[in-house]
Amino acid sequence: MNERDSYVFASDNAAGICPSALQSLLAANQDCVGSYGGDPWTERAKSLINDFFECSCEVFFTFNGTAANSLALSALCQRHHSIIAHRQSHLQTDECGCPEFMTGGTKILLANGDQGRIDVDHAAELAGYRRDVHFPPVRAIGLTQATEWGTVYDLQHLDRVHELKKRFQLHVHMDGARFANAIASLDVAPKACTWQAGIDCLSLGGTKNGMAVGECVVFFNQSLANEFGFRVKQAGQLASKMRFLSAPWVGMLESGDYLNNARHANAMASQLKNRLQAFGLRVINEVQANGILVDLGETLADQMREQGWHFYDLFNPGESRLMCSWATTQQHLDEFMVDLQQLCKPELNQVGL
Amino acid sequence: MNERDSYVFASDNAAGICPSALQSLLAANQDCVGSYGGDPWTERAKSLINDFFECSCEVFFTFNGTAANSLALSALCQRHHSIIAHRQSHLQTDECGCPEFMTGGTKILLANGDQGRIDVDHAAELAGYRRDVHFPPVRAIGLTQATEWGTVYDLQHLDRVHELKKRFQLHVHMDGARFANAIASLDVAPKACTWQAGIDCLSLGGTKNGMAVGECVVFFNQSLANEFGFRVKQAGQLASKMRFLSAPWVGMLESGDYLNNARHANAMASQLKNRLQAFGLRVINEVQANGILVDLGETLADQMREQGWHFYDLFNPGESRLMCSWATTQQHLDEFMVDLQQLCKPELNQVGL
Amino acid sequence: MNERDSYVFASDNAAGICPSALQSLLAANQDCVGSYGGDPWTERAKSLINDFFECSCEVFFTFNGTAANSLALSALCQRHHSIIAHRQSHLQTDECGCPEFMTGGTKILLANGDQGRIDVDHAAELAGYRRDVHFPPVRAIGLTQATEWGTVYDLQHLDRVHELKKRFQLHVHMDGARFANAIASLDVAPKACTWQAGIDCLSLGGTKNGMAVGECVVFFNQSLANEFGFRVKQAGQLASKMRFLSAPWVGMLESGDYLNNARHANAMASQLKNRLQAFGLRVINEVQANGILVDLGETLADQMREQGWHFYDLFNPGESRLMCSWATTQQHLDEFMVDLQQLCKPELNQVGL
Amino acid sequence: MNERDSYVFASDNAAGICPSALQSLLAANQDCVGSYGGDPWTERAKSLINDFFECSCEVFFTFNGTAANSLALSALCQRHHSIIAHRQSHLQTDECGCPEFMTGGTKILLANGDQGRIDVDHAAELAGYRRDVHFPPVRAIGLTQATEWGTVYDLQHLDRVHELKKRFQLHVHMDGARFANAIASLDVAPKACTWQAGIDCLSLGGTKNGMAVGECVVFFNQSLANEFGFRVKQAGQLASKMRFLSAPWVGMLESGDYLNNARHANAMASQLKNRLQAFGLRVINEVQANGILVDLGETLADQMREQGWHFYDLFNPGESRLMCSWATTQQHLDEFMVDLQQLCKPELNQVGL
Repeated sequence: MNERDSYVFASDNAAGICPSALQSLLAANQDCVGSYGGDPWTERAKSLINDFFECSCEVFFTFNGTAANSLALSALCQRHHSIIAHRQSHLQTDECGCPEFMTGGTKILLANGDQGRIDVDHAAELAGYRRDVHFPPVRAIGLTQATEWGTVYDLQHLDRVHELKKRFQLHVHMDGARFANAIASLDVAPKACTWQAGIDCLSLGGTKNGMAVGECVVFFNQSLANEFGFRVKQAGQLASKMRFLSAPWVGMLESGDYLNNARHANAMASQLKNRLQAFGLRVINEVQANGILVDLGETLADQMREQGWHFYDLFNPGESRLMCSWATTQQHLDEFMVDLQQLCKPELNQVGL
Repeated sequence: MNERDSYVFASDNAAGICPSALQSLLAANQDCVGSYGGDPWTERAKSLINDFFECSCEVFFTFNGTAANSLALSALCQRHHSIIAHRQSHLQTDECGCPEFMTGGTKILLANGDQGRIDVDHAAELAGYRRDVHFPPVRAIGLTQATEWGTVYDLQHLDRVHELKKRFQLHVHMDGARFANAIASLDVAPKACTWQAGIDCLSLGGTKNGMAVGECVVFFNQSLANEFGFRVKQAGQLASKMRFLSAPWVGMLESGDYLNNARHANAMASQLKNRLQAFGLRVINEVQANGILVDLGETLADQMREQGWHFYDLFNPGESRLMCSWATTQQHLDEFMVDLQQLCKPELNQVGL
Repeated sequence: MNERDSYVFASDNAAGICPSALQSLLAANQDCVGSYGGDPWTERAKSLINDFFECSCEVFFTFNGTAANSLALSALCQRHHSIIAHRQSHLQTDECGCPEFMTGGTKILLANGDQGRIDVDHAAELAGYRRDVHFPPVRAIGLTQATEWGTVYDLQHLDRVHELKKRFQLHVHMDGARFANAIASLDVAPKACTWQAGIDCLSLGGTKNGMAVGECVVFFNQSLANEFGFRVKQAGQLASKMRFLSAPWVGMLESGDYLNNARHANAMASQLKNRLQAFGLRVINEVQANGILVDLGETLADQMREQGWHFYDLFNPGESRLMCSWATTQQHLDEFMVDLQQLCKPELNQVGL
Repeated sequence: MNERDSYVFASDNAAGICPSALQSLLAANQDCVGSYGGDPWTERAKSLINDFFECSCEVFFTFNGTAANSLALSALCQRHHSIIAHRQSHLQTDECGCPEFMTGGTKILLANGDQGRIDVDHAAELAGYRRDVHFPPVRAIGLTQATEWGTVYDLQHLDRVHELKKRFQLHVHMDGARFANAIASLDVAPKACTWQAGIDCLSLGGTKNGMAVGECVVFFNQSLANEFGFRVKQAGQLASKMRFLSAPWVGMLESGDYLNNARHANAMASQLKNRLQAFGLRVINEVQANGILVDLGETLADQMREQGWHFYDLFNPGESRLMCSWATTQQHLDEFMVDLQQLCKPELNQVGL
């Protein structure tokens, strides 16, 4: 195999910078401008994000999603509170304790739920469990849209979370590292699954969707954004040359590529899922966004890796995650399927794929 | 005045990405690669930084200098320690409490010292002051090279800090947001004012010297780097698309621009200083790197701002800081001087400048 | 019912100060002495605790068990580590996030295990689960001896934890809020289930066993105690009039009441268990220390509370916890059983109990 | 010299438990009661403290003053704020970084001021100094009443702080470890120098005034007390056998000894000051409460220590601090003066003293 794109399914952050993000990054590289956000690109980006959500919201840029999530939670909770999150959420499984660190010690309560989505009944149980001084009261709930499983919360599910929020007076955070993929999948307006659904604060992903670096923290509940700029600075998340974080948002939102990229990635994933299933493999997850969990089995997974492919077994050995991105092409899919074919049924010619 | 480059003297972080950094950033934007540093650019950058310092050192990339400094200190100290820093150091004056936050509460003890450089005698007094359980023992000292004042520590000064380190068993951190400017100014090998001078850990600046985003934490004392990768991740400082932080280092170090840029900025500052002095203005600082503190007086400073120029009064009103960078040109200097001239001595023709 | 001792089964911390603790507290109330531990009582108490464990160990006094546990963990872990604890341990369920706060964000990984004791196989799974930078590596394991369930770890179980410690290079902390009850139950030397079993650090309980206020943190692994005095001070746990925390240890250790109290409490619990079972009630836990979990059912539990008795339903409604202490008497047991009798079988005379 | 009371001037926390505190502590040691404050003594103590301040206020008990101060500040500030405190305040000089730790990193800005009292003009300068995102905005100011210097803020001074508070919208905390001494000195109602003077929150000292252990955090601004109970618990400051912290307050407030003790200590200090001055020694501070700073000189200070006396040189060698407490007697003063006499003027007989 040509090693050229061996990482294409490893993660959506294995891809580079997409053309429209790059173009505006280059356009922003003119002259000297005000630093720390005092530049025209940052202003435009904020304005475009307000437009995107069809509301007035507060927008802050951070360097990555881990920081976006954890800093947002530090504004939604005090350290003596607790947060409900899915037991397989990025917050819990892949941020090395950043939420606990940035909140100063907020406890994460782990909710169950099918395919990465929080079971609202279990969340209600957690939220109502304790009221005494010996346990940190639940103050926030964190959703991931799309989830680590490559699934999405539909509007009905979000409605139930909204009810929960009102019942227990919670703040709701949405980890939207793959928010565009979720919107593209649901085919709804961004507002429909954010502020209209009671989301107070969103980590809006840029990197996985085609930027070099940078995410946004978007506060729909603007009172929670009070002094958030100081938090960003104190946490080492304030970019001095902010334009290089903000300009790509301009390029991607103005061009429509923010959603186009996501649609493309989702479509690639959908096609790959179909081909894997047609090939006789079991796809574990509902493929609603840009990720596939496929039961390759440990042997085949290892063989594919020996062919040079990189991908992770997410929850169990042999349950491989294949991610698509803006950079995934038809050819990548073909090459992957050919290799599978060669390993499993070498007698077939490739036409049969 | 043409508004085009009105921010050129506002800060060295007002400049964009320099050509050699941009070129390698673009070169790195090929294919999908391993994320979180598992890419060839990051490996090369680390290797080049080892070469740069002519030693074996541990290198970690962070997003900005505030985080680089504060995270480094969190590895050098426990929260029940204290740190000596200059009372006008960036740590104390411009990081919004990030060191206190990232260390979990380490106290910063403020040392006096001329023109931004720590007075070693005062530092010794602070280090030896208290030994009882009611005060956090001093565990580290932080130097800034070049300083906020645009001055540098010479090797003799560093030698005295080295003695202090040995006497009180301190760890020494160097904030090198403008390290290249200091090296260029001192005209010594990078090793001479780092590990050979007893520096345990350096925040090595990239952004101000021509990159888009990103700094390094370099551990010469490698035992202190133990598990530092987890600290980076936990603090929200681990870039997923790491290549876009690391590739610019490759471009700038291989081309020599890492030092060339600094030499250029220093030379521009030196020239500007001479012209300001020739013009009759008092330059407040020893101009040893790329920054000038000039006593414009509040009136003239305001008038220049009305002409469109952006710059900050650093310590006192009317004491204006003018920073030069890789992007500062002869023309910028000329334009600035012309405007000064027009405001102060409109009767003169410009030839006299 | 006489309301006099209605709280006797509510908790072992509902009891007052036992005679030997009080006697030495009063004896210590003479003259002015050095503060912050510079008094003869503190020295004697430390020495007696060294004797108690038949080893050289470092002893620090803290105000309560929550602080003792959490501060100890802050010395055993860095914030980017994780800690294994039982999912029903006090650490997790009753310290309101103090461990997360005092460690600066260390994640607690919840181990399963029967009746409050950690299942060592599950702990091994947790310890070996992740090695990548995105998850905090396990650095410590916390045992509770005796457990929240009123059970104890026997030496064989501790041996298996010791193996785990060596395999994964962990630090082992023991929450010994009811350590005396465990020792009394196992009838072994204190050393046998601490340093000889690989315990690095013990929170040694005083309050529940008859003191007014105060616990100890005992480091058998003395290297971990380095600078711990500063941690104690920084966390607001250093008593100025230390003698009133330390003197009761002198009284209780010298008199033998530290173990006598625990033996008494255990014996009371054992007798109560037998009487409850004889009465036909299901005792849920193995009663190995001073606590009983009995399935009163919600109705009977409520009726007993209406009679004035105070006790908690620990894990499920109607599963009531009855704690015995140094202050529990035969008469308390009789009164409780009489009330049960009156409620359930009013036709019987009390002789039948 | 009889060594019996050699620590009497070392600190007011060198004294033991005063009779009225001890009496109620013993009275509280009856029966089993609700823990964590669910006991009648705690309720009575809170009520008496409300009466003491002639207002409705929220009262929380903590174990010591360091914790009381730091926890209070954690409720008054977020970690991205800063706090103004006197550069010789206990907060800064004797809490080993507890404020930084408990607030999660709040920066302490050091105000100047004569004899331990904050210079309000300097505080105003600090409060107004910075407004940009790179520096933590000032959110609180901390006073110490009586100060570390043994002086007090009079009502006029507090008025000026009140103005400052309103001008900069600050929260005002008062460290009242020696609040009773200040009240006794000023001879005003407790309310006059607390809520009527704009104090939001007070650390009300018990230990130094005659208790074994324990201080209060009193919120006059009750909105700031929201969820403070969780903070107390999370910080390891919630006593299980709370009655032993609260009952002494009942005894001391009901008997009047809370003020009587302070008056006695102040009077002893005043007398001692007069005798030291009459003896020809320079008293450095205004003796307004129970502490004296006297210029013994290093030689005489050492000689007195050789006689067995314990005391500290607070700010400079030979500038000795002598503290009086409820336990200081006429005889102690006589003995001290006799020893001074013997050392300095052995030819005199003691009658002359």
